[in-house]
Amino acid sequence: MGVNSNRVEDFSSQETTLRITTESIVPGMEIHNVCLPPKKTTLQKLKQRLGEIFFPDDPLYRFKNQTWCKKLLLGLQFLFPIFQWGPEYSLRLLRSDIISGLTIASLAIPQGISYAKLANLPPIVGLYSSFVPPLIYSILGSSRHLGVGPVSIASLVMGSMLSETVSPHDEPILYLKLAFTATFFAGLFQASLGFLRLGFVIDFLSKATLVGFMAGAAVIVSLQQLKGLLGIVHFTTKMQFIPVISSVFNHRDEWSWQTIVVGVSFLVFLLTSRHISMKRPKLFWVSAAAPLTSVILSTILVLCFKLKTHKISIIGYLPKGLNPPSANMLSFSGPDLALAIKTGIVTGILSLTEGIAVGRTFAALKNYQVDGNKEMMAIGLMNMAGSCSLCYVTTGSFSRSAVNYNAGAQTAVSNIIMATAVLVTLLFLMPLFYYTPNVILGAIIVTAVIGLIDYQAAYRLWKVDKLDFLACMCSFFGVLFISVPSGLGIAVGVSVFKILLHVTRPNTLIMGNIRGTNVYQCLGRYKETSRVPSFLILAIESPIYFANSTYLQERILRWIREEEDWIKANNEGTLKCVILDMTAVTAIDTSGIDLVCELRKMLEKRSFKLVLANPVGSVMEKLHQSKTLDSFGLNGIYLTVGEAVADISALWKSQP
Amino acid sequence: MGVNSNRVEDFSSQETTLRITTESIVPGMEIHNVCLPPKKTTLQKLKQRLGEIFFPDDPLYRFKNQTWCKKLLLGLQFLFPIFQWGPEYSLRLLRSDIISGLTIASLAIPQGISYAKLANLPPIVGLYSSFVPPLIYSILGSSRHLGVGPVSIASLVMGSMLSETVSPHDEPILYLKLAFTATFFAGLFQASLGFLRLGFVIDFLSKATLVGFMAGAAVIVSLQQLKGLLGIVHFTTKMQFIPVISSVFNHRDEWSWQTIVVGVSFLVFLLTSRHISMKRPKLFWVSAAAPLTSVILSTILVLCFKLKTHKISIIGYLPKGLNPPSANMLSFSGPDLALAIKTGIVTGILSLTEGIAVGRTFAALKNYQVDGNKEMMAIGLMNMAGSCSLCYVTTGSFSRSAVNYNAGAQTAVSNIIMATAVLVTLLFLMPLFYYTPNVILGAIIVTAVIGLIDYQAAYRLWKVDKLDFLACMCSFFGVLFISVPSGLGIAVGVSVFKILLHVTRPNTLIMGNIRGTNVYQCLGRYKETSRVPSFLILAIESPIYFANSTYLQERILRWIREEEDWIKANNEGTLKCVILDMTAVTAIDTSGIDLVCELRKMLEKRSFKLVLANPVGSVMEKLHQSKTLDSFGLNGIYLTVGEAVADISALWKSQP
Repeated sequence: MGVNSNRVEDFSSQETTLRITTESIVPGMEIHNVCLPPKKTTLQKLKQRLGEIFFPDDPLYRFKNQTWCKKLLLGLQFLFPIFQWGPEYSLRLLRSDIISGLTIASLAIPQGISYAKLANLPPIVGLYSSFVPPLIYSILGSSRHLGVGPVSIASLVMGSMLSETVSPHDEPILYLKLAFTATFFAGLFQASLGFLRLGFVIDFLSKATLVGFMAGAAVIVSLQQLKGLLGIVHFTTKMQFIPVISSVFNHRDEWSWQTIVVGVSFLVFLLTSRHISMKRPKLFWVSAAAPLTSVILSTILVLCFKLKTHKISIIGYLPKGLNPPSANMLSFSGPDLALAIKTGIVTGILSLTEGIAVGRTFAALKNYQVDGNKEMMAIGLMNMAGSCSLCYVTTGSFSRSAVNYNAGAQTAVSNIIMATAVLVTLLFLMPLFYYTPNVILGAIIVTAVIGLIDYQAAYRLWKVDKLDFLACMCSFFGVLFISVPSGLGIAVGVSVFKILLHVTRPNTLIMGNIRGTNVYQCLGRYKETSRVPSFLILAIESPIYFANSTYLQERILRWIREEEDWIKANNEGTLKCVILDMTAVTAIDTSGIDLVCELRKMLEKRSFKLVLANPVGSVMEKLHQSKTLDSFGLNGIYLTVGEAVADISALWKSQP
Repeated sequence: MGVNSNRVEDFSSQETTLRITTESIVPGMEIHNVCLPPKKTTLQKLKQRLGEIFFPDDPLYRFKNQTWCKKLLLGLQFLFPIFQWGPEYSLRLLRSDIISGLTIASLAIPQGISYAKLANLPPIVGLYSSFVPPLIYSILGSSRHLGVGPVSIASLVMGSMLSETVSPHDEPILYLKLAFTATFFAGLFQASLGFLRLGFVIDFLSKATLVGFMAGAAVIVSLQQLKGLLGIVHFTTKMQFIPVISSVFNHRDEWSWQTIVVGVSFLVFLLTSRHISMKRPKLFWVSAAAPLTSVILSTILVLCFKLKTHKISIIGYLPKGLNPPSANMLSFSGPDLALAIKTGIVTGILSLTEGIAVGRTFAALKNYQVDGNKEMMAIGLMNMAGSCSLCYVTTGSFSRSAVNYNAGAQTAVSNIIMATAVLVTLLFLMPLFYYTPNVILGAIIVTAVIGLIDYQAAYRLWKVDKLDFLACMCSFFGVLFISVPSGLGIAVGVSVFKILLHVTRPNTLIMGNIRGTNVYQCLGRYKETSRVPSFLILAIESPIYFANSTYLQERILRWIREEEDWIKANNEGTLKCVILDMTAVTAIDTSGIDLVCELRKMLEKRSFKLVLANPVGSVMEKLHQSKTLDSFGLNGIYLTVGEAVADISALWKSQP
């Protein structure tokens, strides 16, 4: 017993040094003390914890040990990344940026018109949205390859959420007002997330959820485009699978063969060009130029046959000129405010998720880093400014950014070039779109969203993680059959449930010694491990919380019962000591501490010894604060399982 | 490189054996393979996982290797525990049970009347509820010490939730119907939880939450009793702090000094007796007998002065006779069904929590086990039966069980004795309660609920776990100022948030080698640890999920940046290898796998090596399924940090 009686004193005197008992009985096995972490006040702990929660990337590290003047410059660069790359900007970079800027402009114009239609907004709003926000992003944003503009997901979600309550055809002004108010709230929400450093909120939309969500949305949107592609006039405004399908087939008399012929041929053209670019990334310009080409070709086609084709519906008149201010259209009162806020938050989260993910993807390809929280502020501010200049929700679009990257964009200047091209279009080219047929917009949308159906990703989820696949399917079918927000909600619920399930029903493993070493590993997994007679060594693979303390107690008692049965069956002496390997118990709460105490008492009554091996710092601290450590004290806590086994065996030998 | 080239083949051939490379370069350090867990089909895995989730205690283990006849007997005993202890029942046990049964009956009669009042139900319902449910429990229940009957928390929650919508004074029949329907749903919910083995649902009401909830409820209830104690006639039916307090002071003209004198003196008597029993557990009978004594004394008092004390309100006429059937009062339609279901679920959860916790507590004291899921079925069935015989929600009551235990109860027969005593009361003694003053019921309730305020537990929470304390305070103030279900909801939310926070922002630790050993521990915590030159060893203390993969990537890159700064400042060579100790990474999902892959690629670009140490079985499996293992392959995965350091150092030496 005297072997390591000095170990317990350490707990009370809280020294954090390590004392090695030299007279260890087992040759070669030194027994180490388990230390408490260095003492800190509650305030210090709180500060550290908050730092880890809100400033994990330590964003201010650049400012350390700098002069005031340098700090000011760094601060300016921190707030406006344009000051970072601006001074080093060269003509060579400009040339690359002009090429990529013009390329994405050729994509942006038809996309803008189409996506605005998806959100049930006038086509011109889509063009406006490709002008103001990219300019603001180029000043504030930290990604060099992000192509900013409206995106399909956010457009369709806004369209579906708003049009369930307000009809865009019967009350167009109210609908517009709601759309801009929702955009404002989306921006406000995004900017606040960034400013309050709560960016982790978007992490809760896991990739699995998004795969299912986007596929479901793509299916719905493609089906909705049958309205344009078939030339149907009376169509449901609902977004669920069943009403849309029944709408398609209930109006078979409205199908127009002229529209179908034009639509299908351009759809084939667009899909083929997309296929070519996917096979050979160097031919990215094929799919980038295809939408504009289709628009031009189809417009000319309709223009030529205009006398004979009253059956193909066209865009019609679009106003010339720059974005008018629309701050007066924001309304912060009235019965629909709640709807605007809800729509703003949902579209805000979705567009943020896409924007951040896209920014990170291309940053990783070029080996620079994008600051998530700063990006959120940039995207949020650009949407708030957008809502005051007749723009709806915009973000970093995946298709534009991919084209931008492949066209060789070097800095955010490519966004400025694109905005300039859109400006020219707005000022001079609007009448050209008069005869553009609506069917072509449908074809562009279908081509865009079909790329969102990632069945390979879904198959991979199925293969690797069944619960992730379940979350994916929940969001897919939820979006398809219930509604967009419910589908998302269910999927987030499933993802969170998965985390909670892992905590509520943690793994416990029985461990054995790998012969000839001090390593202890799972008995079933490593055939070379063997049981240590008289010991039951259990690894607990989860923090111990209120949610699992009852379970763990039952499960540990069952392990003991089964071990005793096994020992009886194999006639292997008696069980005398239970060792809990606490390495993976990374946290404990008051219920967990109660479990440990109770377990110790229960085992003591049955004259078993309970030993903890390698409790982590925070667990040690809580055990100390709750005085549980004192009751373990002597030979109760060890640094490793190996030391525990060696020391306790030695003790038994010396005190038979 | 040849040293362990055989390690990689194992991954592809999936052998689970251990191969020791004998020609290890570092003397005394053998390099072990990391094994995949034994291969299982999806179905086998699902079966095992479901087994762990729903049958952690392996409830059918008794049936293994038994004859059919024995199995039948065991099954009967399993369903009706009375068959387990019944055959061994003796006269000696009966004597103990009679004493304890009569003792709890003396407590049950005044408690029944008082708690029914708390639920705004007629006093007689409280007595009915102490008759049928205990009889059913004694057949089905597995606890030997549980004293069954109405409890304060469930009574007051039912009273507050129902009376917010339906007034018990204006619509007494509707109120009664709702109460019995809610009781039915409470029972149905409890029995289903038990039957579906979903008992862990109640684990989400952590002890911290319950401490706050009970204290808040106790404060509100005590304040509400001021109605009876001060003799106020017009009182609010609301359950929030502010309306109750203002009700007390707005009706100062209704205060009656006679009532106050009687109330305060009996309150002092009851509190003193409670204090005595708490100081000396052997004098448990003092507090057990006090309520009945008070009722008798006060009734006699009022009877003596009956001509002069019209100012003290009395219970009045109570019907004689047994429980009439009330199945016809259950209504499963109508506008209030949702309210009944909601009330049923909330009271069901609360009463279940109390019942199970009390059962477990006393079982642990006598060293037997209570099966949670079976208890739930027993409590649920007794409530369903109760709802058909004019009883409202009952469960195992803490006060009754404590008295029962202290009075020496041996089996559930004490519940039968209590029910018999209540039966006698119902049949013959009801007229005696005619003159019992209502003020005494208020005093009994206050004494009962004041014991629920456990400020010492709250202080302990504050000392040990600040977030648990926050959950406690949330439920306390939520119940006090908002409402009972919202308070509970907020507190459960805080508890779940705490789990999610730990997952979203996991700890990462930098580790060093404890000199002279193969043990690696946290650098800041153990002073004897030292950095290993050229290595950065990080321990990740959480599963890697979608919710933290972004955070972990940022945090790990920051560790690397800081390590490089440190190395530069201390002029200590270069960083060449990052080792992630995965011991505490007990699960990984597809986002986590993406993180590992991406991190490896990013580090490779900067020509660092990424190594994983000791991935657990399920993580290895997922890495294998997603083909990530292949990209790590050679020298990428080791069993321990020590082996990784030794092997890679040796490799560097042999290939400079």
